[in-house]
Amino acid sequence: MDNKLYALRSLMASHNPPLDALIVPSEDYHQSEYVSARDKRREFVSGFTGSAGLALITKKEALLWTDGRYFLQATQELSDQWNLMRIGEDPAIDIWMADNLPIEASIGVDPWCISIDTAQRWERACAKMQQKLVQTTKNLVDEVWTNRPPAEINAVNIQPLEFAGRSVADKLKDLREKLVQEKACGIIVTALDEVAWLYNIRGNDVAYSPVVHAFAIVTSNSAFLYVDKQKVSFEVNAHLEKNGIEIREYNAASSDVVLLGCSKLESLSTDGNVSGKDEADKSNNDLIWADPSTCCYALYSKLNADQVILHQSPLALAKAIKNSVELNGLRKAHIRDGAAVVQYLAWLDKQMQEIYGASGYFLERDTVKKDKYSESLKLTEVTASDKLEGFRASKEHFRGLSFPTISSVGPNAAIIHYKPRADTCAELDPNKIYLCDSGAQYLDGTTDITRTIHFGKPTAHEKACYTAVLKGHFSLGNARFPNGTNGHALDILARIPLWKNGLDYLHGTGHGIGSYLNVHEGPHLISFRPHARNVPLHASMTVTDEPGYYEDGNFGIRLENVLIVNEADTEFNFGEKGYLSFEHITWAPYQRKLIDLSLLMTDEIDWLNSYHSKCRDLLAPYLNEAENAWLKKATEVLS
Amino acid sequence: MDNKLYALRSLMASHNPPLDALIVPSEDYHQSEYVSARDKRREFVSGFTGSAGLALITKKEALLWTDGRYFLQATQELSDQWNLMRIGEDPAIDIWMADNLPIEASIGVDPWCISIDTAQRWERACAKMQQKLVQTTKNLVDEVWTNRPPAEINAVNIQPLEFAGRSVADKLKDLREKLVQEKACGIIVTALDEVAWLYNIRGNDVAYSPVVHAFAIVTSNSAFLYVDKQKVSFEVNAHLEKNGIEIREYNAASSDVVLLGCSKLESLSTDGNVSGKDEADKSNNDLIWADPSTCCYALYSKLNADQVILHQSPLALAKAIKNSVELNGLRKAHIRDGAAVVQYLAWLDKQMQEIYGASGYFLERDTVKKDKYSESLKLTEVTASDKLEGFRASKEHFRGLSFPTISSVGPNAAIIHYKPRADTCAELDPNKIYLCDSGAQYLDGTTDITRTIHFGKPTAHEKACYTAVLKGHFSLGNARFPNGTNGHALDILARIPLWKNGLDYLHGTGHGIGSYLNVHEGPHLISFRPHARNVPLHASMTVTDEPGYYEDGNFGIRLENVLIVNEADTEFNFGEKGYLSFEHITWAPYQRKLIDLSLLMTDEIDWLNSYHSKCRDLLAPYLNEAENAWLKKATEVLS
Repeated sequence: MDNKLYALRSLMASHNPPLDALIVPSEDYHQSEYVSARDKRREFVSGFTGSAGLALITKKEALLWTDGRYFLQATQELSDQWNLMRIGEDPAIDIWMADNLPIEASIGVDPWCISIDTAQRWERACAKMQQKLVQTTKNLVDEVWTNRPPAEINAVNIQPLEFAGRSVADKLKDLREKLVQEKACGIIVTALDEVAWLYNIRGNDVAYSPVVHAFAIVTSNSAFLYVDKQKVSFEVNAHLEKNGIEIREYNAASSDVVLLGCSKLESLSTDGNVSGKDEADKSNNDLIWADPSTCCYALYSKLNADQVILHQSPLALAKAIKNSVELNGLRKAHIRDGAAVVQYLAWLDKQMQEIYGASGYFLERDTVKKDKYSESLKLTEVTASDKLEGFRASKEHFRGLSFPTISSVGPNAAIIHYKPRADTCAELDPNKIYLCDSGAQYLDGTTDITRTIHFGKPTAHEKACYTAVLKGHFSLGNARFPNGTNGHALDILARIPLWKNGLDYLHGTGHGIGSYLNVHEGPHLISFRPHARNVPLHASMTVTDEPGYYEDGNFGIRLENVLIVNEADTEFNFGEKGYLSFEHITWAPYQRKLIDLSLLMTDEIDWLNSYHSKCRDLLAPYLNEAENAWLKKATEVLS
Repeated sequence: MDNKLYALRSLMASHNPPLDALIVPSEDYHQSEYVSARDKRREFVSGFTGSAGLALITKKEALLWTDGRYFLQATQELSDQWNLMRIGEDPAIDIWMADNLPIEASIGVDPWCISIDTAQRWERACAKMQQKLVQTTKNLVDEVWTNRPPAEINAVNIQPLEFAGRSVADKLKDLREKLVQEKACGIIVTALDEVAWLYNIRGNDVAYSPVVHAFAIVTSNSAFLYVDKQKVSFEVNAHLEKNGIEIREYNAASSDVVLLGCSKLESLSTDGNVSGKDEADKSNNDLIWADPSTCCYALYSKLNADQVILHQSPLALAKAIKNSVELNGLRKAHIRDGAAVVQYLAWLDKQMQEIYGASGYFLERDTVKKDKYSESLKLTEVTASDKLEGFRASKEHFRGLSFPTISSVGPNAAIIHYKPRADTCAELDPNKIYLCDSGAQYLDGTTDITRTIHFGKPTAHEKACYTAVLKGHFSLGNARFPNGTNGHALDILARIPLWKNGLDYLHGTGHGIGSYLNVHEGPHLISFRPHARNVPLHASMTVTDEPGYYEDGNFGIRLENVLIVNEADTEFNFGEKGYLSFEHITWAPYQRKLIDLSLLMTDEIDWLNSYHSKCRDLLAPYLNEAENAWLKKATEVLS
């Protein structure tokens, strides 16, 4: 019997009211994609280490819901105490609970770990069987987690104007205008990247995302940052104070939301009269804005429902539309990052030939088996990608990786979110495709790039698939489209060349990317799902272009560049709408050997040659002579 | 003062309750796109002859809402008693009423002329200002319409199995299975094409659509047709009786729906025990199915809301997915129709040279002005298209046109739904683009084709635009896509080549087409609107592929083929979804002179050549020697 489950069930039984079930989500108090070690409650409880999942513990059962990316991994990691619930195949949690838990059951959940949207959806589902969603006052998992990692005290940093591009004052001014438009007296900001963006601060509280564990509340006259004060240096304190931001303890967010609800928060503020508004001015604006997809249910529950505006946070779009300083930073960061990738590919090419007798990046010959190579020279998915991290770390403004590198050989490349582990990962193989999806955080921008490579002799089928993915990548990345077009409409462009042969991929095609912030950023995306957020692409947004093709047990292909949305210089402007196009800012060659040139059209070949030529020019300053020679060869004109 | 408005306002005042406003929609009792002369109430009241519009008469004002296709025409046709409300620019009618009519206003409407969806939307809007939507017991317009055309007695015809492909018994069996699945005891069928399709009958009650003014009700044991019995011959009567269909008077639909609501309809039926179901069997199924987008509010209002299932009619999809007999009929009809179009183009080519001195279909030279040509030889948009109708009428199974021919020269071609009138239409012009969008009804299928032609010397800009439209037409028509893909996702394929230059068109890209039924048929469509009906394309559906480009005051371009959705023979079948592709069944050449070959890719040129070669082969048997020679020249290999 699992001790954790036993302990949890005891707590569930002694809870008031006693709980028939307990939901343990993957998210932290901020609905983050990546969470800190001490927030990995679902992982602790279930043993499943994937990034997405939801655990449900009943008196007798323990169930874990996760999606197709993780079915295999979950099967391997879950003990026999657990049942895997496959999203898309098995009933969703709310349907399962209605069908399997008793009438009037009490279902516990920590309201800090679920969004308003999710809580309300579950409450509606529960109501059908008179079941109740019970907000636990403590997190029951934390109670049984004896070795829970302690909270780290990581310093808050200022993101200087030379990288942020816009002052906090300017951002607050815009935000307050939005509040007035919506007749709101204040907004609760819970998404960590929104807090960091708004106050021009960064931190180290979460792996891969340079954010600070913090909430913010902004009213027409005041602004608050809720954070462990130990993390705030004198300098940061001065930066915040200068902008009229009051620092309060992280835990005070809860009680301050109550004060906000009864219009008493501003009287707390030491800067209560910044804007000099009088009482009469404010009387019309008494609503409180919360983003239902990111704000935790715990804070929402402190307010009267009828005083809350549940709209997407205005900071999501404001942050997604980059300013010119951020765009230039992103361009520069991507050049340095591309140089690191090219250094890695050139290094890997040499290793693959020397260690494994591969014909290498350029030649398409059978591998000459080396008699024996020393074990110490063995290259694995992890040792290889560590080298890549090293090349990145040598670049200016490097601040870490932006997500766990997907360094994957052969069949592993078919696992879309594969994360190699040093102890179990595969060895590089000159006869198999190698897919590397990686990115880094630089002070001036976040990067994300995927290239797929073969160091031996790819099959005709692999080439045909690679070329179809490349054509889709090209078709999307070089599209022009009118203002108002959303990513759902564009998604098909990346799939059509694959569909031609009956191929497809089961993930979206693009996501926004932050300016030294989260690698996955909304509110827009490029996705085949008709319910995808219906946010049109807008000039100065960033978005990735990453179609793929995955053959289970065999290989995987993905190509990914980051794009900036620009106003297009079209000959005409029908409908006076203005047209948009993409600027590729990722720089690394596509492997010629994997391209079946007979499948490319003239305009595709022309584009490739022009892209490769820019790669050469932009990366040259960052490469040594040998690397430049390698890149020159990798970017030779195709015809 | 307009007499009609005066008379209507008197009736509104004496109505119980007195009406503050009266809504006059364009639709008949069946929500038809084309309506009979006596159903053109909105046209009678307002004087505006466009196909789409909505009139609102208040005590002091008269307003007409219509869409962008008709702004110009409405301005010309409306008297100064009327205000034009531009859909998309001015407030929608429900918003206008809430803002402009008094609180608690009574707003009259004939509930037979509006759908359930529309009525409910207006009722919700009215409620905001405590306004009421009042169902008038008589149609007030009919009361003041002294010269209203009488009801015509047009014979009902049987659509024989050799064209219908499926027996009525078979269709009823499927329908009754759907009823059981939805726990419905009956369905009210009001869409004229659904009634005609289900009972394998056709008629002549509405121009362009071979339908009968009729309702149907189908229960698990009975089937009824509500129609003017004078239209039903002995033979048709026998066909219906054989299938267990009872004929009742058109006006009885209303009282029979009441009986259906209290489960007393079947006891009326002379064939009450066809399926031999007993009472116990039926007890679970007591709901009544009505399609909220087509069923009139009058019939819905006879029922308790909680006993009605408001879902799209199952007949919509059943009718859209053609059987093999219908598909073969459509293929044959389109070959004959293509031959008529080619005969027309060859004839027109000769006329344009002889009458106007044009360089003609093939040569790209300046027009040689003829000194004088006799007025009797003058060609207009209408006299030309009459000739086209003649060529069609000479073909087997011809039964009339499927919509008013859009025969349009120069600037008129930029008016998307242009309908030339004999007295005002333009003369053909060898120096201007000519756009012809036309179609016919044949016993074995309905057709719809658009070609754009120039008989003189097109400008480089016209060629570039034509080629962009052609590329979009090609890209959509030759796409492959997995099952589950809807037309909204595909729409962008037709636009991308236009968007590249900042061009676009403000209409959808494709609609379903009937089998000797309506030329516009749902439930699927190909449209840029994100709210477009989300029905995936399905094998054996038909759909048009008709992108365009329109330059106000200058010219218009549209190219349209009808496509059949087929299962695609893809090399792979990723996701086991099955893939689909299109089969073009429209046959007529694209004018070489308008194509800028330098803008076409190899695969586009290959496809054109292959398509043209099929045109030659398929149409040859229907053409005389001169016509065949012309077609041979028109379809010469491009390279």
